[in-house]
Amino acid sequence: MPNLIAYGLGTKNTKSTVQMFINPYADGMKEGQNTSTWTSVDLAQLEFPVAAHYADITGNGFNDVIICDKYGPSMDDIWPDGGRVSWLENRGDQEHGDWTLHVIGNSPGMHRLKTGYFTRRDRIQICAVPIVVASSDLETPAPVTIFTAPDDPRNHDGLWPSEVVTKEHLVHEVVVIPAEGHDQFDRVLLAGRDGVYLIWFNGRVWEKFSVGEGLPRTSDNPFWGAGSVAVGRIDGDYAGYIASTEAFHGNTVSVYVKPSEDSVDGIVGNKWQRKVLDDYGPLNPKHTGSIHQVVCADIDGDGCDEFLVAMMGSDPPDFDRTGVWCYKYWTFTKTKLSSISAGRIATGHFMAPNPTDFATISYSVPGYFESPNPSVNIFLSTGILAEKLDEEICFRVVRAGSTRFTSEMEFLDVAGRKMTLVVLPPNRTLQLPAGDTPTAVKVMAGSVSWSDTSLEAQKDIHFLAPRPFEVQSMIVSADSLRSGDEGAIFVLFKPSDTSAKPPFSSMEQLEAQNILPAFVPDDVRAMKFPWVKVQDRPWAHGRFKGLEFYNLVGWHVRFADDSADELAHVQMWTAGVGVSAGFHNHVEKSFCEIHACISNGTGRGGMRWATVPDDEFDPANPDLSKTELLVVPDLHEHGALWHTQGDGYPQIRVNDTVDYPWHAWLAGDGDGDEQSFDVWVAFEFPSFGTYSPSPLPEVVKPGQRYVIQVPSTDRFIGLENGSSTDGTLAAAYRKPIVESQQWIVSRVPGTDLYEFVNVQTGSLLCAQWPPVQEQKIIGTHSPANMGITSRWVVGLNDSGLTISLRLPRMETELFLGASAVLQENDEGWPVVLREGGVKPPVWNLQPVQV
Amino acid sequence: MPNLIAYGLGTKNTKSTVQMFINPYADGMKEGQNTSTWTSVDLAQLEFPVAAHYADITGNGFNDVIICDKYGPSMDDIWPDGGRVSWLENRGDQEHGDWTLHVIGNSPGMHRLKTGYFTRRDRIQICAVPIVVASSDLETPAPVTIFTAPDDPRNHDGLWPSEVVTKEHLVHEVVVIPAEGHDQFDRVLLAGRDGVYLIWFNGRVWEKFSVGEGLPRTSDNPFWGAGSVAVGRIDGDYAGYIASTEAFHGNTVSVYVKPSEDSVDGIVGNKWQRKVLDDYGPLNPKHTGSIHQVVCADIDGDGCDEFLVAMMGSDPPDFDRTGVWCYKYWTFTKTKLSSISAGRIATGHFMAPNPTDFATISYSVPGYFESPNPSVNIFLSTGILAEKLDEEICFRVVRAGSTRFTSEMEFLDVAGRKMTLVVLPPNRTLQLPAGDTPTAVKVMAGSVSWSDTSLEAQKDIHFLAPRPFEVQSMIVSADSLRSGDEGAIFVLFKPSDTSAKPPFSSMEQLEAQNILPAFVPDDVRAMKFPWVKVQDRPWAHGRFKGLEFYNLVGWHVRFADDSADELAHVQMWTAGVGVSAGFHNHVEKSFCEIHACISNGTGRGGMRWATVPDDEFDPANPDLSKTELLVVPDLHEHGALWHTQGDGYPQIRVNDTVDYPWHAWLAGDGDGDEQSFDVWVAFEFPSFGTYSPSPLPEVVKPGQRYVIQVPSTDRFIGLENGSSTDGTLAAAYRKPIVESQQWIVSRVPGTDLYEFVNVQTGSLLCAQWPPVQEQKIIGTHSPANMGITSRWVVGLNDSGLTISLRLPRMETELFLGASAVLQENDEGWPVVLREGGVKPPVWNLQPVQV
Repeated sequence: MPNLIAYGLGTKNTKSTVQMFINPYADGMKEGQNTSTWTSVDLAQLEFPVAAHYADITGNGFNDVIICDKYGPSMDDIWPDGGRVSWLENRGDQEHGDWTLHVIGNSPGMHRLKTGYFTRRDRIQICAVPIVVASSDLETPAPVTIFTAPDDPRNHDGLWPSEVVTKEHLVHEVVVIPAEGHDQFDRVLLAGRDGVYLIWFNGRVWEKFSVGEGLPRTSDNPFWGAGSVAVGRIDGDYAGYIASTEAFHGNTVSVYVKPSEDSVDGIVGNKWQRKVLDDYGPLNPKHTGSIHQVVCADIDGDGCDEFLVAMMGSDPPDFDRTGVWCYKYWTFTKTKLSSISAGRIATGHFMAPNPTDFATISYSVPGYFESPNPSVNIFLSTGILAEKLDEEICFRVVRAGSTRFTSEMEFLDVAGRKMTLVVLPPNRTLQLPAGDTPTAVKVMAGSVSWSDTSLEAQKDIHFLAPRPFEVQSMIVSADSLRSGDEGAIFVLFKPSDTSAKPPFSSMEQLEAQNILPAFVPDDVRAMKFPWVKVQDRPWAHGRFKGLEFYNLVGWHVRFADDSADELAHVQMWTAGVGVSAGFHNHVEKSFCEIHACISNGTGRGGMRWATVPDDEFDPANPDLSKTELLVVPDLHEHGALWHTQGDGYPQIRVNDTVDYPWHAWLAGDGDGDEQSFDVWVAFEFPSFGTYSPSPLPEVVKPGQRYVIQVPSTDRFIGLENGSSTDGTLAAAYRKPIVESQQWIVSRVPGTDLYEFVNVQTGSLLCAQWPPVQEQKIIGTHSPANMGITSRWVVGLNDSGLTISLRLPRMETELFLGASAVLQENDEGWPVVLREGGVKPPVWNLQPVQV
Repeated sequence: MPNLIAYGLGTKNTKSTVQMFINPYADGMKEGQNTSTWTSVDLAQLEFPVAAHYADITGNGFNDVIICDKYGPSMDDIWPDGGRVSWLENRGDQEHGDWTLHVIGNSPGMHRLKTGYFTRRDRIQICAVPIVVASSDLETPAPVTIFTAPDDPRNHDGLWPSEVVTKEHLVHEVVVIPAEGHDQFDRVLLAGRDGVYLIWFNGRVWEKFSVGEGLPRTSDNPFWGAGSVAVGRIDGDYAGYIASTEAFHGNTVSVYVKPSEDSVDGIVGNKWQRKVLDDYGPLNPKHTGSIHQVVCADIDGDGCDEFLVAMMGSDPPDFDRTGVWCYKYWTFTKTKLSSISAGRIATGHFMAPNPTDFATISYSVPGYFESPNPSVNIFLSTGILAEKLDEEICFRVVRAGSTRFTSEMEFLDVAGRKMTLVVLPPNRTLQLPAGDTPTAVKVMAGSVSWSDTSLEAQKDIHFLAPRPFEVQSMIVSADSLRSGDEGAIFVLFKPSDTSAKPPFSSMEQLEAQNILPAFVPDDVRAMKFPWVKVQDRPWAHGRFKGLEFYNLVGWHVRFADDSADELAHVQMWTAGVGVSAGFHNHVEKSFCEIHACISNGTGRGGMRWATVPDDEFDPANPDLSKTELLVVPDLHEHGALWHTQGDGYPQIRVNDTVDYPWHAWLAGDGDGDEQSFDVWVAFEFPSFGTYSPSPLPEVVKPGQRYVIQVPSTDRFIGLENGSSTDGTLAAAYRKPIVESQQWIVSRVPGTDLYEFVNVQTGSLLCAQWPPVQEQKIIGTHSPANMGITSRWVVGLNDSGLTISLRLPRMETELFLGASAVLQENDEGWPVVLREGGVKPPVWNLQPVQV
């Protein structure tokens, strides 16, 4: 992970200190790393330094810094003998500063430089370009100089050999295009008064290709053309578009795009078309605005670059003109990423290999524009944020299906396990820690699966919960796991060497450590997670007196988007030998709760629930003969223990809570006199549909495309006019089969239900609310809550040849059927809901090969 | 509102600039104020300034600044001729700097000074105390000097008259105790090596009173005693406690308290007892730690001071030792208020008259301790935070019942109304804007009421919603409104002169302006709130094509505590003449929705709902003969339109959504050809209980204390053993009546239901879940969701003498009754649930005079 080098221009009285900020994540997110502080080392004190780049000039494996200084206080006060170009020698000792400075050459007004191989490939070269050659002289073109490293740069006496290859006007950006394909040498893209253009040495002479002239010249403005430029990759084409800001310190954001026809990859040979995207308002009396730089980077990891525009700020201050705007290819819609004055942006991977992070430095030049609180800032990209909510953590996570990056965050080390929250994009593999102790997983959204290492063929898939009243192991019997089509959000229980391992005979052994990483805000990292005796919780109100029963709060996981929807609230519990956690039935709050057991220290601890109606059970004096027990062993979780409606939907009480039988965690009786603790984690999810209590045979294949045929006819269910409008009627149409008569089937994760998505419109085959007999079926994108009208039970009929489609059981069983009024005409036969009767309506489901 | 003055110590090479930061809220939160920037003016450039205070020395009505400088780089490098005391003349022109400096006197090592009246009351005096008198000399006591202002301070030639009144060791804090009662002069509380002690002039001699000696002396530590001190008010006693940090730059937090007996108000004459509250860890090799100052302030507005401890930071950095800890009287539990290095704290009212804000300056002294990013920070106190959640605002609010401060935040100016979110503490009055146009109010939590200005006697009370299927005016026909016992959270619709007023013939007139105040983060203030044609919303999916139907999102209001519970999601809508917003029934999401109409531009716009079962109504081709219409006039809201269970509880569908009939906003037909728009605000609340459809007679008086008697007996309902444990049985006990047999009745806001709170235990008279015949009633603090088992319908029986208590109607009607087994003994007769039958069980309810 790279360090950051930053410096200002300095002033007449104060030299500028070139500082290197040491990356605290340099060795990755190490265990036990306890600081996110970027400490700094002073590399040099220089007078008016401007541009810098890096290259390993000595060949010792460390990048040296090439930097120009002695510029002068401003463009109107250029030092006539300045514009020195030097390099600072990096001996690889980043703890110490004061790097040796070696002078390369000089050129007054020196303002931008980049390293590369411009006219030969055996030596490092520097392309260096002044902005102007003398104070306030906007007319005289400035030399573009190529400096070439000497034989032994460290011991070289005198300046480097150099060559002026062209002279250009008011160049404010230099971008190196690395040699590609048949190119012999690196090319140089310039942004200046003459617009955006590429120059390169073809082995004999320097050539030039103009991308565009940028902002047109107007009579009252000395600045035209371009001010900065960046090249945006689109998949395989490194120059899918070119972003440019215009003109010198201007207010215009433009983009150059290629015609869709007759274009080639790369820059040269294309007819670039300039489009103005944004104008950030009128220029000031000095004819300048707020934009200082544009850079391209693949911020969202989709293989296409976004571009970032650095805004210096303005006087008076203005939100739009301060900070960093990110423009998303291809729509070029924009999002603000920072509101702190940004003169330049550096992109890179500062914390993890993915995704792209960036850093900014404020613009503040006395006499020109001074931002109020200039600073260097680093913006780390992560899919998981952690905030403090009183005594609990609130994690805010991206939706797994919409991200392209895996995010992981360790947060709590307790009971021999490091709990780690993970967001895994769709169909992505995550490597698990190696070692003898296996890792366990509790899914919070989507699904994960793995192939058992010992039994190659078997594949374990985990969703929110196993089947009702069953337990399943959370242990991943493989060295990696993989997310499904929706991605996955889950907690890993990684093995820990830094917390005591089961069994636990005292609560001291269960002390929990906050192991949140260094980039999480200090207040969250400083949080303590004490085990509180339940009798001392304010909600105990005199109950649980003297019981070895403890509670640890806890954390919320919410989506980091406008919905702020909660995935779950999670807390931890322990109970000593013989302790009952108290029979309760969750009438105070509505959630579907799953317990994940870390350690079943009491031997036969687990969930007990009353098998009699609520009013026949006395929770204060429980008669265990009226209960059943589900032992939840070490690293196991259980399925739904709430009442369901047959097809896995929770029953809801009249007070809007999920209907539970009386239930409790009852610790086992242990083994002799020794104390021993059960340790478990309670995941409180918003109400969700789960499996039906008994498994059903799998009749359809998820991901497969089908047609749904009225048996013995040539009619297939489609949508009227192939319309994607919500509420479009479904009907059985004659052949020929078109895409609006094809459906992709998907199994609803963690249930026995299926959805049918129309291939043409993307809408779901749905009943309307309330689903009633003879109701017409529609295509819609907005099904009822918990998908209760878009999800179907697929049954195989006795013949084995036809299937039936039934809505989840409510008061009556309603099947998909063709209309009662079957007439021979060319219109579609309406598709309706129908009670099953003796024989449910049947359908032929036929796979379609794409 | 005060400005802030801040400065550092400076260095050998750089003078310190004394800066005054101009308060952007100086004239209150003015309308249209568009900056939260504290611009600064340089008052002076000084060498090593240390302490400053203020007083109006010239008598021109502006505070001058008294400041000491020429201290020296550190305590080990005191300037022998330094310690100058001066004043900077404030001519009242805060735009310009360079205030004239007048020298007062000098005393080497000068470190703390305060203004007051110490030996005479006719002249401003300064009490000035060096920390040491020479470099590294911790032994020689330093003079306490009183400087007295001359006749004409501005034109005075030479130094001020001065007097050394005592000599003290290593004084690091000077606090002025203003003269009180019989006191003639201000007193001075010192914290130094000799601990905490008060000195004062009694008119003849200087006296001394020792509060305590502070940290005991140990052989290896040159610092003992106290380092800082602050006096904490407890209600009427300005010196309820004294907080002290120990010793010089130490790590110990102590508090001095008075014995509960034989103590008097104030400081002198009490036997102060020192208690060590916290030790922030071992000192460094220089024998210093991280604490620099302690100050007292009433942060939470309860009339008792909290105290704030300024922590400089430490090397290596440590969360606990950096920033500001707030200790709450009386438990002295602590909360972190800032994690930025704080050397000194200034408290004040920087934004609004209440509550207390504070500012900090980091500690950073070269060669001693330098915090990594020293800064001046202001911490404004508010009960409403605004964040950006994608396209919507997320307001986070304190609970109205738990705050002592009113918070207000204007946020949107649209349709002639400035929408303002308000949190009002219990039983507090809020003045409304004066003028001819009335203000309207929509309650989101708790209740507000007002007395109609024209009809003195009548009192309007508003809750979450009016009675089902009714409308009520939101206009406040008074110049103020008042919150109830629970406080209130609501939106005010204040009149606006900056947005167009109804009627609206085009959407251009309805442009909405973000009017969030300056202290809200920039990204929220920069948000736009466009009206989006509903056909263009992604969720339209082909519907609403061509309709003049627009949507504006919107804002969430959530509690700013661990629960993060949502109060409501709110969005705005408009519809042109004849437009139907589309019949729908909210099967996708669960909420209880109330529409507040700003402008009924189409004349008879309002809510229409189907009066037939869902399956007998076709929402796509609505038959209006099967509907009813409730016109919602300008500035009116309607009551519940969802299905309720008779006593006001929402019916819940099997898919966990609130059960609605098909319904829609239907715009009216307007007036002629002119276009006209309805504008309304939709409040989507989590499910809640509301009024029953018909009003019930009011039988009991909220707030009154009652006994509940079995008629014709001497038995009264109480709790077994008077226990506050949840689940304690309720039973009818004989006289004598004790507090556990007394109940305070409260009406559940916005419903026709009552709760009974036990006077002794605070628990509620509750049924358990599920409520069934013959179930024993209990006292509990944790009723079921929506209070469905703690709330009672109170009926007056035919005789007019007895009442009945009934649970809200579920499947059966269940009444409170005495046990079926009535036997004559001394035990309580159990109180149970019982079906009503022909005659419901009756009770005598008798008011108790307290």
